[in-house]
Amino acid sequence: MNILIKSATLNGKPTDIHIEGNRINRIVPADSINAESHAFTTIDGRGKAAIPGFVNMHTHAAMTLFRGYGDDMPLMRWLEEKIWPNESKLTDEDIYWGAKLACVEMLHSGTTAFFDMYHQIDATAQAVEEMGLRAVLSEACFDHFKPELAEKRKNDILQRFKTESPYSDRIRYALGPHAIYTVSGALFRWTVDFAKEHDVLIHTHIAETESEVRQCVERYGTTPVRYLHRLGVLSPHLVLAHVLYVDDEEIRILADSGAKIVHNPASNMKLGSGYRFKYTEMREVGIPIAIGTDGCSSSNNLDMIEAMKLASLLGKSWRRDPQALTCHEVFHAATQAGADMLGIRAGRIEEGYLADICLIDLKIPAFTPNHNFISNLVFSANGSCVDTVICDGRILMRDKKVMGEDEIMEKAASAAYNLIKRDQKAK
Amino acid sequence: MNILIKSATLNGKPTDIHIEGNRINRIVPADSINAESHAFTTIDGRGKAAIPGFVNMHTHAAMTLFRGYGDDMPLMRWLEEKIWPNESKLTDEDIYWGAKLACVEMLHSGTTAFFDMYHQIDATAQAVEEMGLRAVLSEACFDHFKPELAEKRKNDILQRFKTESPYSDRIRYALGPHAIYTVSGALFRWTVDFAKEHDVLIHTHIAETESEVRQCVERYGTTPVRYLHRLGVLSPHLVLAHVLYVDDEEIRILADSGAKIVHNPASNMKLGSGYRFKYTEMREVGIPIAIGTDGCSSSNNLDMIEAMKLASLLGKSWRRDPQALTCHEVFHAATQAGADMLGIRAGRIEEGYLADICLIDLKIPAFTPNHNFISNLVFSANGSCVDTVICDGRILMRDKKVMGEDEIMEKAASAAYNLIKRDQKAK
Repeated sequence: MNILIKSATLNGKPTDIHIEGNRINRIVPADSINAESHAFTTIDGRGKAAIPGFVNMHTHAAMTLFRGYGDDMPLMRWLEEKIWPNESKLTDEDIYWGAKLACVEMLHSGTTAFFDMYHQIDATAQAVEEMGLRAVLSEACFDHFKPELAEKRKNDILQRFKTESPYSDRIRYALGPHAIYTVSGALFRWTVDFAKEHDVLIHTHIAETESEVRQCVERYGTTPVRYLHRLGVLSPHLVLAHVLYVDDEEIRILADSGAKIVHNPASNMKLGSGYRFKYTEMREVGIPIAIGTDGCSSSNNLDMIEAMKLASLLGKSWRRDPQALTCHEVFHAATQAGADMLGIRAGRIEEGYLADICLIDLKIPAFTPNHNFISNLVFSANGSCVDTVICDGRILMRDKKVMGEDEIMEKAASAAYNLIKRDQKAK
Repeated sequence: MNILIKSATLNGKPTDIHIEGNRINRIVPADSINAESHAFTTIDGRGKAAIPGFVNMHTHAAMTLFRGYGDDMPLMRWLEEKIWPNESKLTDEDIYWGAKLACVEMLHSGTTAFFDMYHQIDATAQAVEEMGLRAVLSEACFDHFKPELAEKRKNDILQRFKTESPYSDRIRYALGPHAIYTVSGALFRWTVDFAKEHDVLIHTHIAETESEVRQCVERYGTTPVRYLHRLGVLSPHLVLAHVLYVDDEEIRILADSGAKIVHNPASNMKLGSGYRFKYTEMREVGIPIAIGTDGCSSSNNLDMIEAMKLASLLGKSWRRDPQALTCHEVFHAATQAGADMLGIRAGRIEEGYLADICLIDLKIPAFTPNHNFISNLVFSANGSCVDTVICDGRILMRDKKVMGEDEIMEKAASAAYNLIKRDQKAK
């Protein structure tokens, strides 16, 4: 399918964007391409600005089902009472509908690609395949320090990568050793060796809370990042979510390793995990940093525009520096930086790049006046400003409507309510 | 006009809300009132939840014109280069269109009343009168420690309160001594005496930045709140914006005085003013706390739903306590607490209260699933979930459209661009 976006604002100028197949083919000043002479699907871009689709670099998509189920609670009580008992009962169908709901929500707020970690990822893969986004999916992997469980996990991984994926190349797999307090050093090492051999990404949580740091020091005699370093697993294949607790030496270790980092401001703030994310110090030594929302049970939405604002405001506030984390920096982190980490040619609107594009509705108060578009996008707008989403050259949302969204919301809500009913009956 | 909201969700139950004139007349289980038998305007509330309109307790409405004009800058450079030179050139018409844009934006995100401080407030009053919201407006008052300016300001105030207001009782006036670093102690005292005599509110900024505290200590030998206490001006008429820098003794002084406090998390974070707002400590001793957005040039929107989320997340994060500032607490602060401070019988949906009501669209991902409505409203939604707004018994927004909004956005944008053009020509 060929698409012509006519007269959208790109970098402040009226621009025509021509998409051929799944790529951006030509970008020219408005009205340079004659729409009549080609078999184009034409989108009227007047009053709209084109931006690359957002890349949400840390999600647990199907946790949309637990949105608002247990807020304002201490972390461990919330996990033990609300989340874990219910997660263990999730069926593939629950996860399928939860992930579809996540896709609807991501499209509504302009996200075209995401990096997920969850259970039963085939159900998520099926949902994403149908919804048309891109995702790199990692099965959450725990061995709880039991060698027999570690063997089982290795077999699961070998099995997955032996079988040919039934999905399009919008969907790829990664490995998901959950965290250093749930995965043994041996399994962590094996996972990273496997990842290097097969050139796949690894998704993990690290240095998220003070209690994790404390436990790590008690168990291993050192801090989380130093422990990963000692294990020899830090590498460019590693994408580390959170990384709130690091000192200067650990930042240098991370920079030398080529590991990538994902900042999740909403989750870190809401769970009270911490707030001193060292964006500036880590960027100064060249560590790539992207932005994520985390799962909907902790953040509680998948809105990357809100996540950009939170990242910037949180950084400015604890540093007491209004010049820290500018709108341009967080916009880069939410688009290009994520796409680069996933190894997809996206996150930019340039000829030859993947056609993962959003059109932003400028005819709303958030963009009035429009002295500075990126400032308005980050500081004034929220996800609801997204009007149109194209991913891989296909139109997935138009006029703020995603095909089938009403049914998806109904089915996902039913799945969530049934799950909780089962939970309450069991008590 | 009589209005019947049919089958809206209120406190989790399908409910009919009958509005007579500007009051909520009856609240009954859905379908108890026969719409056919009365001359009602009927609103279909199915799939929508009714909440009281938000009360934004600290705004500079017409600063919408400066939205995104100079972000990520140090405070003083931003004020001196970007804001003050332009503010001094604002015409009444500029302020009128800026305030109208603010009203459109506030309605879109569910705000029905606000507490404003700005210049040339007759232009703001005219805008609010036409748009149908409620506002308490204070003229920003500075004497820069010059007795002749202080006399001028007193005359302005005497003049305003001598003249009968041409506006409806939705609009009231307050006094606006700007801050202790722009207003002399003598004028502050006179203002508070006047306020007590005429029973009007006082709107001021206090303890917002560390440099304000430092200057106060240098000039007066004590901290900002102690200085106000020494002046003898702390009283229930005083509404204090910011109050970031207070110690335990100052909190007790504030509690004893009956003064009210407005927390502005977005502005405090974005300007790097500080983040340790002592919500819990101040609530514990009974100090009333409301929430505000501050002006659009510092926050950069007027979305009270975002402000609630920021207040809660900021409090949880620096305290490292996920149980701090629950969704119910910040919802109370953004509705009832503000209405109580303004002395309006609103902020609640109860019989006899003013008909200041929003309907929230539940058929969106933010409310799917809807395990906990207030959690979803605060943590998952943003201003765009508001579908319908009624203020003083009049429908001001329906199906997410405010009458005349396109023209208002155009006119306000033109005013803003002309202002900046004049600014750039002058350089």
